[in-house]
Amino acid sequence: MYQPMLLGHEQSVTALIDQKAFPSHWHSEIELLYCLSGELQAVVSGVSYPLTPGSLLVIGSAEEHSFPEGQKGARLLLVEMGFSFLGSEFSALAALRFTEPLLSPCQPDSPAAPLLPLLEDLLEWHGKPGPQAIWTCKSILFSLASELFQLPHDIDLPKIRKKRLETQLRCQAVFEYIRMHYRRSLPLEEVANAIGYEKSNFCKLFKRATQTSFHKYLNAYRIGIACRLLESGEGSMKSIGEQVGIPEPKSFSRIFRQVMGVTPTEYRERMTRYE
Amino acid sequence: MYQPMLLGHEQSVTALIDQKAFPSHWHSEIELLYCLSGELQAVVSGVSYPLTPGSLLVIGSAEEHSFPEGQKGARLLLVEMGFSFLGSEFSALAALRFTEPLLSPCQPDSPAAPLLPLLEDLLEWHGKPGPQAIWTCKSILFSLASELFQLPHDIDLPKIRKKRLETQLRCQAVFEYIRMHYRRSLPLEEVANAIGYEKSNFCKLFKRATQTSFHKYLNAYRIGIACRLLESGEGSMKSIGEQVGIPEPKSFSRIFRQVMGVTPTEYRERMTRYE
Repeated sequence: MYQPMLLGHEQSVTALIDQKAFPSHWHSEIELLYCLSGELQAVVSGVSYPLTPGSLLVIGSAEEHSFPEGQKGARLLLVEMGFSFLGSEFSALAALRFTEPLLSPCQPDSPAAPLLPLLEDLLEWHGKPGPQAIWTCKSILFSLASELFQLPHDIDLPKIRKKRLETQLRCQAVFEYIRMHYRRSLPLEEVANAIGYEKSNFCKLFKRATQTSFHKYLNAYRIGIACRLLESGEGSMKSIGEQVGIPEPKSFSRIFRQVMGVTPTEYRERMTRYE
Repeated sequence: MYQPMLLGHEQSVTALIDQKAFPSHWHSEIELLYCLSGELQAVVSGVSYPLTPGSLLVIGSAEEHSFPEGQKGARLLLVEMGFSFLGSEFSALAALRFTEPLLSPCQPDSPAAPLLPLLEDLLEWHGKPGPQAIWTCKSILFSLASELFQLPHDIDLPKIRKKRLETQLRCQAVFEYIRMHYRRSLPLEEVANAIGYEKSNFCKLFKRATQTSFHKYLNAYRIGIACRLLESGEGSMKSIGEQVGIPEPKSFSRIFRQVMGVTPTEYRERMTRYE
């Protein structure tokens, strides 16, 4: 039914993507999709919305969404923000049910009009290197988050979203612990103890929150970091494995392949080729 | 000679203060002082600057500064930002030596003119409750940080500031560890091991970076959190002690007094009285 997304480890995500079909899924992060070109049908909480250039889709926290098959696709600015970027105050935003998910920021009378300059600024600064660009993007993202409260909403969150959020909240400590300690060996028991859970309860909680196991999540997190290191072009395979807590080269290669479908060497070659 | 400031634990500090005399000290956080009323002589790296209403003083990372005795004092907007708020990119800002520390943002031809609307916005939003105000303040702070690169500077940092920064950088992992784990018992050995140091080297490093011992720092950090909990007016003394990792009530009261000069009960009474 849905495919989990492993985003708990990211502070925030801003990306330009060419979006085609994607199966139904949810995550605690709030998601904005700003359509730049093309056309795309999106399904949010069972309702279909047509994305066209200039339109903005706002997907609430823990809200199910998908993009049906057989579409040409669209170029989108994607923004995701959750607890790790917005802090504990995010729960106030996560509790909103947006009653008009599809908006037109370019129309001056739209409730989303104040978002337009922020989206335009984000398009300009996104992906640029250097501290100034990074801080400018963060500044824009915090302004965006603050503006989201002004969009049409009510606060009667469906029961299932409430439950998902409760579980996610309890798991934030786990994500933070992984973020702090992924560089070294990290036994499940240690993490469970650190947040005050017994092993078996911990496994149940984690599965409910992420729809995956602790080990799969940890592997995916480590390989995500490894990908960025590989893209930067620096460091040997051995050193990259060590930096993400998988010091044994054979294990690193095997786990990388499990997660990414290609070996680390192939991945690096592809990334270099497309540059 | 200088009094250490325990700020490593704070994400960022924004405060309206009535500043009088203060002994010479330094910290890795960059510091902005925007004068609202009154007059104050400030000494930065041995040079004296007169703060008058509308003037802005920019104090670089790890730069010594003080306010001599015998002054009437001034009302200031204080902003401090460092690694814990700006992330690892802060090192680029910390490496700047500001060649014109005293600026006049109100004058249109001043290099600090772009900071004026940000300072005014911060004055408006600072201290307001709720997620929107907090995110708006963060947005302003990231913009401020980004603008600071445009101020007149060079990059030949004095040797002593370079050295202080190196030590501070190594200690960031300790501050982060404390921030994550202060709620429970936290032996020095555990923290030393977690960042890959032997006990005795760890103590030397920590002392160099913070001018205080690990235990004093940890106590001050815990009591800082306890103060905020006391101000919020919720929770018994026992529960507050437990929340900051000092579950034994007698120890909590003793350590609180050591750090704050008053008992937790007196502190709470004072805070309530002034409301």
